[in-house]
Amino acid sequence: MRILGIDPGSRATGYGIVEQSCGGLRFIACGVIRPPCGGGLPERLRVIHGGLEEVIATHRPAVAAIEEVFVSVNPRSALILGHARGVAMLAAIGSGLAVHEYSARIVKQSVVGYGQAAKGQVQQMVRVLLSLLSPPSSDAADALAIAICHAHRHPHVPSGGRPR
Amino acid sequence: MRILGIDPGSRATGYGIVEQSCGGLRFIACGVIRPPCGGGLPERLRVIHGGLEEVIATHRPAVAAIEEVFVSVNPRSALILGHARGVAMLAAIGSGLAVHEYSARIVKQSVVGYGQAAKGQVQQMVRVLLSLLSPPSSDAADALAIAICHAHRHPHVPSGGRPR
Repeated sequence: MRILGIDPGSRATGYGIVEQSCGGLRFIACGVIRPPCGGGLPERLRVIHGGLEEVIATHRPAVAAIEEVFVSVNPRSALILGHARGVAMLAAIGSGLAVHEYSARIVKQSVVGYGQAAKGQVQQMVRVLLSLLSPPSSDAADALAIAICHAHRHPHVPSGGRPR
Repeated sequence: MRILGIDPGSRATGYGIVEQSCGGLRFIACGVIRPPCGGGLPERLRVIHGGLEEVIATHRPAVAAIEEVFVSVNPRSALILGHARGVAMLAAIGSGLAVHEYSARIVKQSVVGYGQAAKGQVQQMVRVLLSLLSPPSSDAADALAIAICHAHRHPHVPSGGRPR
């Protein structure tokens, strides 16, 4: 089963896809959707939504996972982030994917074992867990970490077997 | 030219369409999209986006207008509102409409002549300006007010003529 992790942002939306099987987790793809700087917010949202739809059509994940937002940020930032997160969720549910949400603390605990881990640590552990040659960029690593978190919390069940 | 006004919200998204011609403003349609209470946020966003796409396909507005959000609200509310506003903007730009934004103060000034007007006043003036038999519901009236505001700021120019 393929899992799409999404780290939404109006300037940069990270995505990462991992495949979960009885052999463990396998890296499929990751990247960052960066809408052109000149466009207004509606145009940036269109690029994010279209980009994620394309990623879903190409890699056919079965489920999506997205980070819950920690709302200590200021209302203005929360509002703008909400726009990006809204169209990201829409791209997933519009393509028939269930959308799961995880807090940043749970995601970090899942990949680094510590809820307050630094971004660099997340990048390194994503590299290790998915046997990548080099760590992905920060936004893509965060998205992969969210996908890994979902996999850890929904272990693969082989036919007739029990969760590993 | 038809103008779509949108008053987005995750529980209730108001819409209103007016037609602008040399004869003035004419009411075309208004309503409120209310996603089912039981659904999660992604499902609510899908309903809002799909509902607005349907309104646009039915009434074929040429342009959309949406309220700027006054971000003194708390970050949690701003975040959730951002999701709804994001998919509303996406429905408009995805259907080829330019999206204009107006502050609540400008909208109220445009229909009531006073930036701090109460909701009931907006409903009454929308009824008067569009010659409706009864005032629309609050969310639909706010959406119509946004469409009227756009019309007032972009006067109709008849072929070969000057703005009225």
